[in-house]
Amino acid sequence: MSIDTLLHEPELRPFLPLLYVAWADGDLDDDHRALIRARIDAQPWLKPRLRAALEQWLTTTTPPDAVALARLRSAIVEAAQTLSPEALQSFSAIASSIGDVDDDTRAVVDELERDLGVDPEALHLQVEQPVVDRFTASTSFAPAKVQALLDGRFAKDRDRVREFLADPDHRAMYGVDKERYREQVYVWLQALADAGFGKLSYPGVTVDKEVGLGPFLVSFEMLGYGDLSLVVKYGVQFGLWGGSVFFLGSPEQQQQYLPKVASLESPGCFAMSEVGHGSNVADLETVVRWDSDTRSFRLHTPSESARKDWAGNAALHAKFATVFAQLEVGDDRHGVHAFVVPIRDDKGEPLPGIRIGDSGHKLGLNGVDNGRLWFDQVTLPKEALLGRYASVDDDGVYRSPIESPNKRFFTMLGTLVGGRLGVAASGLSAAKVGLTIALRYATARRQFGATSAPETLLLEYPSHQRRLLPHLAATYAFHFAIDEVRERFLARLPDDDTRELEAEVAGIKAGATWHVTDTLQACREACGGQGYLSVNRIADARADTDIFTTFEGDNTVLMQLLAKGLLTGFRQRFAEQGAVRFAARHLRGQVALTNPIARRDDDESSLRDAGHQLRLLEFREATLLHTAARRVQQRMAKKVEQTVAFNEVQEHLLALAAAHVDTVALRAFIAGVDKATGHERVVLDRLRQLHGLTLLERHAGWFYENGVFEPVRGRAIRKLVPRLFAELLPDVVGLTTSFGIPDACLAAPIAFSDPAHPRW
Amino acid sequence: MSIDTLLHEPELRPFLPLLYVAWADGDLDDDHRALIRARIDAQPWLKPRLRAALEQWLTTTTPPDAVALARLRSAIVEAAQTLSPEALQSFSAIASSIGDVDDDTRAVVDELERDLGVDPEALHLQVEQPVVDRFTASTSFAPAKVQALLDGRFAKDRDRVREFLADPDHRAMYGVDKERYREQVYVWLQALADAGFGKLSYPGVTVDKEVGLGPFLVSFEMLGYGDLSLVVKYGVQFGLWGGSVFFLGSPEQQQQYLPKVASLESPGCFAMSEVGHGSNVADLETVVRWDSDTRSFRLHTPSESARKDWAGNAALHAKFATVFAQLEVGDDRHGVHAFVVPIRDDKGEPLPGIRIGDSGHKLGLNGVDNGRLWFDQVTLPKEALLGRYASVDDDGVYRSPIESPNKRFFTMLGTLVGGRLGVAASGLSAAKVGLTIALRYATARRQFGATSAPETLLLEYPSHQRRLLPHLAATYAFHFAIDEVRERFLARLPDDDTRELEAEVAGIKAGATWHVTDTLQACREACGGQGYLSVNRIADARADTDIFTTFEGDNTVLMQLLAKGLLTGFRQRFAEQGAVRFAARHLRGQVALTNPIARRDDDESSLRDAGHQLRLLEFREATLLHTAARRVQQRMAKKVEQTVAFNEVQEHLLALAAAHVDTVALRAFIAGVDKATGHERVVLDRLRQLHGLTLLERHAGWFYENGVFEPVRGRAIRKLVPRLFAELLPDVVGLTTSFGIPDACLAAPIAFSDPAHPRW
Repeated sequence: MSIDTLLHEPELRPFLPLLYVAWADGDLDDDHRALIRARIDAQPWLKPRLRAALEQWLTTTTPPDAVALARLRSAIVEAAQTLSPEALQSFSAIASSIGDVDDDTRAVVDELERDLGVDPEALHLQVEQPVVDRFTASTSFAPAKVQALLDGRFAKDRDRVREFLADPDHRAMYGVDKERYREQVYVWLQALADAGFGKLSYPGVTVDKEVGLGPFLVSFEMLGYGDLSLVVKYGVQFGLWGGSVFFLGSPEQQQQYLPKVASLESPGCFAMSEVGHGSNVADLETVVRWDSDTRSFRLHTPSESARKDWAGNAALHAKFATVFAQLEVGDDRHGVHAFVVPIRDDKGEPLPGIRIGDSGHKLGLNGVDNGRLWFDQVTLPKEALLGRYASVDDDGVYRSPIESPNKRFFTMLGTLVGGRLGVAASGLSAAKVGLTIALRYATARRQFGATSAPETLLLEYPSHQRRLLPHLAATYAFHFAIDEVRERFLARLPDDDTRELEAEVAGIKAGATWHVTDTLQACREACGGQGYLSVNRIADARADTDIFTTFEGDNTVLMQLLAKGLLTGFRQRFAEQGAVRFAARHLRGQVALTNPIARRDDDESSLRDAGHQLRLLEFREATLLHTAARRVQQRMAKKVEQTVAFNEVQEHLLALAAAHVDTVALRAFIAGVDKATGHERVVLDRLRQLHGLTLLERHAGWFYENGVFEPVRGRAIRKLVPRLFAELLPDVVGLTTSFGIPDACLAAPIAFSDPAHPRW
Repeated sequence: MSIDTLLHEPELRPFLPLLYVAWADGDLDDDHRALIRARIDAQPWLKPRLRAALEQWLTTTTPPDAVALARLRSAIVEAAQTLSPEALQSFSAIASSIGDVDDDTRAVVDELERDLGVDPEALHLQVEQPVVDRFTASTSFAPAKVQALLDGRFAKDRDRVREFLADPDHRAMYGVDKERYREQVYVWLQALADAGFGKLSYPGVTVDKEVGLGPFLVSFEMLGYGDLSLVVKYGVQFGLWGGSVFFLGSPEQQQQYLPKVASLESPGCFAMSEVGHGSNVADLETVVRWDSDTRSFRLHTPSESARKDWAGNAALHAKFATVFAQLEVGDDRHGVHAFVVPIRDDKGEPLPGIRIGDSGHKLGLNGVDNGRLWFDQVTLPKEALLGRYASVDDDGVYRSPIESPNKRFFTMLGTLVGGRLGVAASGLSAAKVGLTIALRYATARRQFGATSAPETLLLEYPSHQRRLLPHLAATYAFHFAIDEVRERFLARLPDDDTRELEAEVAGIKAGATWHVTDTLQACREACGGQGYLSVNRIADARADTDIFTTFEGDNTVLMQLLAKGLLTGFRQRFAEQGAVRFAARHLRGQVALTNPIARRDDDESSLRDAGHQLRLLEFREATLLHTAARRVQQRMAKKVEQTVAFNEVQEHLLALAAAHVDTVALRAFIAGVDKATGHERVVLDRLRQLHGLTLLERHAGWFYENGVFEPVRGRAIRKLVPRLFAELLPDVVGLTTSFGIPDACLAAPIAFSDPAHPRW
C-alpha cells in the first residue's frame, strides 16, 4: 500500500487522522476494518481511484511501517498546527485542516469517528504541535534571523534543496536491503538531475559561468540534511566524475561529456584509489601505456594491489570511469594522469577487458554501490586522456602546460578540493540534524529528579549540557569556517589555481569530519536506547558519516598535508632572513611579545573576550609551528630524508595541524558573529565564548606545560564553562531551529514528542 | 549451495583449493564450468551425494559470498600451514593436506589443474600462511603463556566456547535482513543450549552448586569473540530472564522454570525498562494490583509512557517475561517487584490482554528481537510474584524478609550485577577482536614512505601506534579489572548479598564499555576504508557494541551510582571522627603526606614505576573524593535536597567515578603482571607502564592544576610514551595472539593477508 497516494490526494487527506489512529497501534482489528469498509462502500460519490486507495489500506494485513506512520503523523501534526485547541477535539475539524472537506466527507468522518469509538485525544495533537516547553518557549532571539546569517548569499539555493528534501518521497531510508536501497538512491539522483541540480556543477558548460560553483557546493551541503547515501552518490556523479572532466578536461571534452553527466544520461565513477594505495596516489600501480603502432593507449591492472576499489557508482550504475593511472610513453613515465574510460555498454554489461566487482556490505551508506575495477589491456583512444594539463599527439609526443611533474600531479589532485569542501559541509549538516533531534529530545524527556517535583529534563543535567552544548558551539564554528574557505575557493574559480587552498581545505575537512563523528556519537549516547533506533535517524547518520573521516583523503594524512603546508609557508616567510634556525629564533621573539600570559588576564571578561581567546590559540599554533620547524630542520641538517624526518615528528605535526584548525575555526566564528546584529549577536557571541573556552579547556595540559596557564586560570575556565551553559540553555533549541532543517529530515519520532504523551 | 557440506566432507575437501581459485574472482566462466563438469562426470567412483554437492557449485550463477569465500580460504590456509614451500607448488599436495586423497582423487585434481590452466601460485599460500613479518616474527615472548594467564582458572570453560566459535556454522553474520538474522541467532542459541551452555547459569538447580557462576560468566565473555547479537540473546535468555528467576525466585519457582529456561524450551524476556523510564526503575508506572475478590494479581500498563520497551527476545521468541511493576495491595504500595508472566501461547500468538510490538531496526544487533509490551488488565496467579524477597498470601497479606522498601528495591536490582559484568566482559572481547584485526593489518599494509625503501608499514607510523597501542594496554587493564571484580562477585554467590559490589561493577561496566567504543572506533579508522567493510568485522562490532554504553544501565547513570557509593563509603569511614567537614580536613592531611609531588620523581624509572603511577592516580581520586564530599556537604548544610545537590556537582561526581575506575584498572593490571614470570612479565609490565603513562598524560591538565605536575614532569611523560611504543612494537601482535581468538572469529580478510598479495 502506498502512503504517497494518501498524502498527495487532497480528497484522501481528510481520512489521514482516522487511518493513523486506526493503525497507530500496529494492528487494525477485523471489526474496525469491517466498520470502515462498510462506511466507505456506502459513499457512492467517492471516486473509484480513491476508493481503491482506501481499500488497499484496509485489505492489507501488514501494518504500515514506522516511517510510513511517522510520515502520516507529520502530515497531521503539520496541518493541525493551524488549529485552536478546541478544534483539535473534533476529527472533522482536523480533517478539514488537512485536505478538501465537503459536507459528504465531513459526514463520513464524523460517522467513522463514532463507529470506531476513538476520539481525537488519541492523536495527542494538543501537545504535539510544536515541542513547547520552557526551553523553546524561552528562546530569546529570532531563529529566522540567525538562519539568514547562516544561509548567507546562497539562501535561495539552500531553499531549493529544502524544498526537495521536504518532499516525503525523498525521505532518508533505513533497514532495507542494499539492492533496494541502491535503486532508490538512483531514482532520487535522477530526480535531482531532473530538477537541475546536476547542471549546477559546471558553470560555463551546463549553466552560466557567472553562477559559479557556489550553488552546487551549497546544494551538496544541504543534501546532508537528508539521506547520506544520496549525498555521496550526488558527490560522486556530479562532483568527482563530472568534476574530473570539468577541471581536468579540455573544452571539447567538457562539451562532449558534461551535459550528459548533468542529466544523468552518463552515470560515471571516479577510479582513483587502489586497494594497495588508498592515500598514496603518487604510487598508484595502474598503467596506461601509449602504443605507437595503434596510436592508442592500453590501460592495464598489473597486480591485485592495483585493483581500483571503493569507487562509488561503479558496482551497479556507472557507464564511465575517470581512471587515474601512470602514463607511460616510450621510455618515459609521466606520472599519474586521468583518463575517461567507458566501462559498461547500454545494457549495463561490463565492456571487454573490464571486470567489475562489488566492494561489499558496509557499516553505512549501503545506498551507494561502491565497486572494484580491473582492466585487462583495455584499448583507449588518445582522446581518453583528460586534456587540460596533458596530451599525447599522434606521434606519441607528450605535452603539458605544466613542466614540473610534481606540480602537474598536485594540480590534478586539486580536483579534490571541491569534493573535500562538500564532504566537510554535508557531514556537518548531518551533525546539525543529530543535534537538533538530540536537543529537542533533551527538552522533552524527563528522568529522575527531586522528590518534590516532576522528573528532571535531560537538558537540565550538567552532564547532558556538557555532552551536547560544546558540540553545538563547534558546529557553528565549523559552519562559519567552511563558509569562509568556500568563499575563497569560489573567488579563485574557474581559472585560478586553487592549490594554495588545498592545505587549508584538507585541515577543515579533517577537523570538521572528526567533529561530526564526535557530535553524532554524543547525540546517540545522549538519546540512550532511542538514539540506537534507526527510526530516530541519529544512529544511521553516525554510521553513514563514519567513513567521512577516511574518504576523500584520510584525515590523518590530510592533517599532515596541512602541517607540511604550514611548515613550507613558515620557511618561505622567513627565507629572506636566513636559515630556518634563525627564523625559529626570530619567531620565538615575536611570540613572546604576544604571549598572553604577560597580561595575566584571568578575570572572567577577558576569558570571554574574542581577541583574548584567539591570541591564546594563536600562541599555541605559533609555538607548535616554530618547534616543529626546528625539529624537522635539525633532522634535515643531519641528512635525514625529509619523509623520515616528517615521520619522526609526526605527532608534533598532527598537533600543529589540529591547533591551526582550532585557530581558523575560532577566527571564522568571531567573524561570523560580527555579521550579526542586535540580540542575535549577543546570543551567537555567547556560543562563541563557549567554543573558545572549551578549546582552551581541552588543551589545558599544553597551556600549563608551556607556562601560559597557572592553576588560577585553569580553574577560572573550568568554572566559567557551566555558567555559559546556563546562559545558553534557553536558546539552544532555537539555535538548532536556525539550521533550517525541513521537518521531513527530522522524521525521528523523538524530535516531535512530548513528555506527557510519548509517541516514541 | 552450502559451503558447509564442502567443508565437512573429507572426500570433498581435496577439491576446495580448485573451487576456491575458480570462484575467487567472483565469477566462474562457462568454459571452466564445462571443463570441471566433464571431469567430474568422468569419475564413476564419486559418490552421488558428493557429485551432487559439487554440481551445486557448478550450476549456480551466484558466486559464493565473501564470507563463504573467506571460510573456504581459511580452511585451505589452515591446512596448508603444515606444508613445505615446495609442496605448496602443487595442487594435489595441497589437496592431500586438506582432505582424504586417494590416487583417483589425486588424478582428478591434477587433471583439473591442467584443464583450468591455474597454478597453485594463485592461492598465494606461500606468504599467507601466518602473517609473517618483522613484527610477528620478532615476538619476544610466548603468547601461549600470557594466554594461560589471561584465561586463568576457567581456561577449560573458555576453550569450550572457542570450540563452539571455531565451528564455521557459528560465524558472525552481516548484511542480511533482520528477519533472517533473528532466526539464525535463535538457531545458534538453541545450539548453545543443546551444548549445555544454558545449564551453566543456575548452579544448584541445573548444574552442581559447586560449579558456581564462573563458567557461565566466562562463556558470556568469550562469546563476545563471535556474533554479538548471539551474545546479547544469550545474556537475555540465560542471564536476565533465567537470572531473574534464579536470583529473585523461590526454590519452587527455580525448579519450575529454570530447567526449561536452560534448554530453551521456555524462551523469555526481561521487561524492566519502560519507554518513559529507562534508567529510573524506581518510578516505573506499570502496576500489579492484588485483587482480593479473585485472589489474584492484575497487571496493567496505565499509560503509553509505561510501555515496556527494548526487551530482547520479546518481539519474536519469548514465551515468558519477567515483568517489573509497582505492587499494590489494598491501600499499600510496596514498590517495584518482579513477576513471571506468560506472554505467548504455544503457537507463538500473544496471550489475551497482552500486546507485543517490535522496537524496530537498530544501528546494530539486528539479530536480537527487541520488543515492546503492553498489558491490559492481565490476571496473574499469586505464584507469579517471584518469591525470594516478597510474597502475598491468600488473605492479601504482603510479606518480605527485607523490611526496608528501599533496601528491598536495591536487593532486587542486584540481579543486574552479573549482567553488567557480562556486558563489560563480552564487549571487551569484541575490542580484542578489533585490535587483533587492526594490528595484523597494520603489520601487513604499507603506505607512503622514504623514496629509497619499500613503503612504510602502517604500524611504523607514530600516529598509528598512538591510535592503537594505548587501547591495547587499556584492554589488558580492563581484562584484569573485570577478572578481579568477577572473582569477588563469585566469592559472595550464591547466598551472600552482592549489593556491596554493585557500585564497583557499575563503574567497571561504564569504564569498560566506553573503552570498547573508543577502541573499536580507533580500529575502524586505523583500517581506513577496509575498516568500513562489514566483511572485516570491525565496523559491525563497533555498531553492535555501541549500545553497550547504554543498556544494562546507562553509563552516565552508573558512574553517578559509583560516585554516590564512594561518597557513602567516605562518610562511613570517617563517621566516627565527626562531621564530613572534619573528615575532609583530615583526608587533606593524609593526602598531603602521600602527595607524590613531594618526592619529585620525574626521572624515567620512577615514571615507569607501578607504585609511583598508582600513587599519582590514587592522589587524584582521593582529592576528587574529598572535594566532592565537601561540596555536597555544603549544599546539604543549606538544606538543599540531596538529589538537587548531587545534580549541581554532577560533573565533579563523574570525574570522581572515572578517576576511581582508572585507579582500579591500573591496580588490577599491576596485580595481573605480578602473576606472570620470566620474560612474559617483562613484556606485560611494559604494557602496564604504557597504560599508566597514558592515563597520566590524559589527565595532565588536572595534575597541573592541582600542583602535582610541573612542565618538566609533563614533558618527561610525553617523551616516554613514544619510547614505550618502540619497546612494545615487536610484541604487539603477539599480545593479541594471547587473547586466543579462534581464526573463525577473525574472518576478516585483512587479518589474513600479506602486502605482496593483498586479498582484501
